[in-house]
Amino acid sequence: MSNVQSVPTAITLDTIRDAHDRIRPHVHRTAVLTNQTINERAGAELFFKCENFQKIGAFKARGGLNAVLQLTPDERRFGVTTHSSGNHAQAIAYAARQISIPAYIVMPRTAPQVKKDAVRGYGAEVIECEPTLDAREEGVRDVMARTGAAMVHPFDDDRVIAGQATAAKELIEDFGQDRPFDVILAPVGGGGLLSGTALTTHYLSPGTTVVAGEPDGAADAIRSFQSGQVEKAPYINTIADGLLTTLSDRTLAIIREHVSEILTVSDEEIIAAMRLVWERMKIIIEPSCAVPLAVVLTNSERFAGQKLGIILTGGNVDLGKLPF
Amino acid sequence: MSNVQSVPTAITLDTIRDAHDRIRPHVHRTAVLTNQTINERAGAELFFKCENFQKIGAFKARGGLNAVLQLTPDERRFGVTTHSSGNHAQAIAYAARQISIPAYIVMPRTAPQVKKDAVRGYGAEVIECEPTLDAREEGVRDVMARTGAAMVHPFDDDRVIAGQATAAKELIEDFGQDRPFDVILAPVGGGGLLSGTALTTHYLSPGTTVVAGEPDGAADAIRSFQSGQVEKAPYINTIADGLLTTLSDRTLAIIREHVSEILTVSDEEIIAAMRLVWERMKIIIEPSCAVPLAVVLTNSERFAGQKLGIILTGGNVDLGKLPF
Repeated sequence: MSNVQSVPTAITLDTIRDAHDRIRPHVHRTAVLTNQTINERAGAELFFKCENFQKIGAFKARGGLNAVLQLTPDERRFGVTTHSSGNHAQAIAYAARQISIPAYIVMPRTAPQVKKDAVRGYGAEVIECEPTLDAREEGVRDVMARTGAAMVHPFDDDRVIAGQATAAKELIEDFGQDRPFDVILAPVGGGGLLSGTALTTHYLSPGTTVVAGEPDGAADAIRSFQSGQVEKAPYINTIADGLLTTLSDRTLAIIREHVSEILTVSDEEIIAAMRLVWERMKIIIEPSCAVPLAVVLTNSERFAGQKLGIILTGGNVDLGKLPF
Repeated sequence: MSNVQSVPTAITLDTIRDAHDRIRPHVHRTAVLTNQTINERAGAELFFKCENFQKIGAFKARGGLNAVLQLTPDERRFGVTTHSSGNHAQAIAYAARQISIPAYIVMPRTAPQVKKDAVRGYGAEVIECEPTLDAREEGVRDVMARTGAAMVHPFDDDRVIAGQATAAKELIEDFGQDRPFDVILAPVGGGGLLSGTALTTHYLSPGTTVVAGEPDGAADAIRSFQSGQVEKAPYINTIADGLLTTLSDRTLAIIREHVSEILTVSDEEIIAAMRLVWERMKIIIEPSCAVPLAVVLTNSERFAGQKLGIILTGGNVDLGKLPF
């Protein structure tokens, strides 16, 4: 048995397996794609886990479902709430619809109309607020007071982390058995996906290291990783709008324990990687999703000749506002 | 044995099987994707055969390979030539590289630089010409006189048609066994893909009908289909730039025998279908490729409740010139 003090989480392999069994009827086992041109460009062997093909177009469906499906019958009566301008909003709305419970999503009034419409399309109520964290949190408190709905945080929640962990589980089960991955890469924003990916890899493929990618223009996780405390980014200016959030104590602890390295990349490198995937793989990924490939391409010596797994996190882009 | 007069082609099921065996080491068995939202929108069950994931980003790799791989040792010494501004150029260049023979591709000087670069990237020589059919054909004649290279026509060639036929073969083998498709749809330009699709379907899934989609702004095939002679379009004005060519006697004969219907759609309908695929399926398809889905969406009563196979033909778009 491990020393308790060295265990930064209550999420065991069984927790992740249970999460997978729980969400399996509601999510896709997404494809894993490879591309010869990108392999040649990288000088490595890349396996892309295509969560852009996931329900709601992003891995967040996994964590949202794993949390919502664990609500008790009493909790379900009052529904679920969260605040998000992005994929987590759709994830919670989608999860709530799967079990026919109310969902109240607090969204900044500046969020794209198409995203509000998507959330409403899943039958959720959208509550608009000012575009500040304070206003969003106050919005959720109001909803909870009014409705009794349960809050599901986008990443600071073991149920969410265990759900996100199932993407790497599928990747390792499908393509990491005979010859384990040398490295699995994921982007880091709040750290829910990265924590889950690191735990799965630790349990199922202990010889594989986990490396995170982060934008230069939202470089908080790398600082937190070094200092051991949740830090803010020195400045925020990046196209990778899904990765602006800071870590929580919970995700930082798991990441410090199980992630070997965080590498940052510029927006130019992110856009080039995104374009390469669009042009060569013919699949649509959002800027945040391109960060790990950008890390591989800009650190080719670090990854040369290795077998790499990359979680492609999502494909929700505004086609009217492309960076190329 | 059939009456010879009723047989419009020498391409038998064995021809197609042989083609498949021949090209299999060099092409992907591409994924078949489904999408719940698009099914709901169409009121039908759609299976998308993703040739946008094929080598060179389009089904044309199949036909090009099947022709080039059948060149005799003598022919191979002198290489292969064709004229094309589009996917066939890359297909022949790619095929030639697979067996290390020279390729000479005549391309209009107005073709996008990125396409010329792609052809050169496969090691082929690009010969630029004026952007007219006469100049292109003269360019090929010059190449043949200079080099002795063999010409592979983009569609008026049984080897090419048999190669294109293998896409529908995979679709039927993978998803049309237990419950056959009601309809398989493909776009029509010169008719190589459509002919091959129709023959495969006739041989392997005789209860399935084949329907073609054509742009209003290049509506030659529907006229030829009705008159029985190769006709030109009344006018050419469409975003579906892969479908501008007229049929040949060869493809028209097969299409008249084995295709049940050709339906036309407007550019507005094509762009809407293309956007739906990008947004919902998170895959990149070119405008020509969206034509069959546009046909389904604009003729929903015709296809309601049916099981439909759609050949997604390619994903080679200029990301700098998107129609949305």
